[in-house]
Amino acid sequence: MGRVTTRRRVARLTLGARVTRREDILVVEEPLEIRVGGRPLAVTMRTPGHDVELAAGFLVSEGVIARGDEFAAARFCDDGSTQGNTYNVLDVALAPGVAPPSPALAREFFTTSSCGLCGKASIDAVRTQSRFEVRDDTLRVAIDTLVTLPDRLRAAQDVFESTGGLHAAGLYRADTDEMLVVREDVGRHNAVDKVVGWALTHDLLPLTGTVLMVSGRASFELTQKAAMAGIPMLAAVSAPSSLAVELAIECGMTLVGFLRGESMVVYAGGQRVEEQQGFERPSAEGSAA
Amino acid sequence: MGRVTTRRRVARLTLGARVTRREDILVVEEPLEIRVGGRPLAVTMRTPGHDVELAAGFLVSEGVIARGDEFAAARFCDDGSTQGNTYNVLDVALAPGVAPPSPALAREFFTTSSCGLCGKASIDAVRTQSRFEVRDDTLRVAIDTLVTLPDRLRAAQDVFESTGGLHAAGLYRADTDEMLVVREDVGRHNAVDKVVGWALTHDLLPLTGTVLMVSGRASFELTQKAAMAGIPMLAAVSAPSSLAVELAIECGMTLVGFLRGESMVVYAGGQRVEEQQGFERPSAEGSAA
Repeated sequence: MGRVTTRRRVARLTLGARVTRREDILVVEEPLEIRVGGRPLAVTMRTPGHDVELAAGFLVSEGVIARGDEFAAARFCDDGSTQGNTYNVLDVALAPGVAPPSPALAREFFTTSSCGLCGKASIDAVRTQSRFEVRDDTLRVAIDTLVTLPDRLRAAQDVFESTGGLHAAGLYRADTDEMLVVREDVGRHNAVDKVVGWALTHDLLPLTGTVLMVSGRASFELTQKAAMAGIPMLAAVSAPSSLAVELAIECGMTLVGFLRGESMVVYAGGQRVEEQQGFERPSAEGSAA
Repeated sequence: MGRVTTRRRVARLTLGARVTRREDILVVEEPLEIRVGGRPLAVTMRTPGHDVELAAGFLVSEGVIARGDEFAAARFCDDGSTQGNTYNVLDVALAPGVAPPSPALAREFFTTSSCGLCGKASIDAVRTQSRFEVRDDTLRVAIDTLVTLPDRLRAAQDVFESTGGLHAAGLYRADTDEMLVVREDVGRHNAVDKVVGWALTHDLLPLTGTVLMVSGRASFELTQKAAMAGIPMLAAVSAPSSLAVELAIECGMTLVGFLRGESMVVYAGGQRVEEQQGFERPSAEGSAA
């Protein structure tokens, strides 16, 4: 796209050294408006590129679509800008018969439960709206494979090296030992939506047998996105939140955090983390209490 | 509050070692619905605590209020939960005469410009909606002071040490060399809103003479929040995005990134970073255009 990074003159200051001036490479951030059938649905600040995947993944996360044939087409609209098409407004056409999203969709996602607004209600909303079960997946991943995933994610990041400014999400397929796709974005939720959207457009949902590897923390939102795509294991380099762990347990998802160096912490679904010779299986953890 | 962290049994796995089981401390994440005059406005996933400040800062960021006396009161509503008050729904009363926000506020923020949806339009929207100018601030901060801010932010973080799961934002006042307030949250935008809301409720807006120090990256959204509160300098431990830098330049804000160890990169507004003996002033950088 040529719009993923940009250059700018900056000054680097270090205590006890002279100012150095140089060109710095920055990650690009621009708004994307997602429309469905011509109707504005959401605006997200994202790194341009893979925008059709981003929109598709967003619609999966929100429970609007779950199969490739429900996503008919997408095109950038001319939004009336005097500069011509900005490629920042993407209109999605759903297949005939697919119900369009409610305009208040994002809010409703968290508030449709009758038990009041709380973590439990947010979890119930995901379980109600998801079309997939991750519970019965037969995925098993050995810990010596898991510890390689952060480096494999980083190795596939094109842009991070140059800018230091991008989150990444990768989809690992266990039976073929492949990192199927890696996407980067200034917003970590966008990186995950791009991965899920890629999978939708390749007719791969539900994503049984896969691990979603993310570069940062595991929030409720990322865990929700994994659940909506039927991903049985979420692995994060950093810490998960309480609600991410609760959602993972309720969905029967495996949640691994602090996956760094040669170790990790298993918060939920330990039965999918395969014991190695001399290891005890951590299966007692994270069974749905 | 007692709701900021929670404990859970986990399994720690390390290559070549036995599984260890222990209690792990997790950062709590729960939804907060912000209402204005009884009308739902937004739901954010946040770490409970300082919720009134969070709501106040959110309303500053969105251009609804800019003075302490415009924020009349806030109370947690009973949201009809069978479990009683969840303390996850906060209703704000604005002072008489203050215009309530439009329900479509968040979307409109980025799309009110006539030039189409682009970074420029997003920047124009901030400049149109902000009641404060940061351009003429007389703030000057020496680089040997700036390099101390990340450690001072971290030292004030109560919860990060135990969970590794929290973003932090701190407000540094230059003339008294004080870190006025530090707030932590699972969402970095919430941490900034809590800081700005604290300042609003202490009648400190516009925040001339201050530096907003953040633990992560500098996105457009965080830069927008600083601009709306009249903060003349944003300093981040990690990388800024292109649009964050452009907004800082347009607003006349100083933007410092990669503030780590004894060095930093100045992306905009270098005139506020004071030269030290033997240093050249980096003032040529980041002047508007």
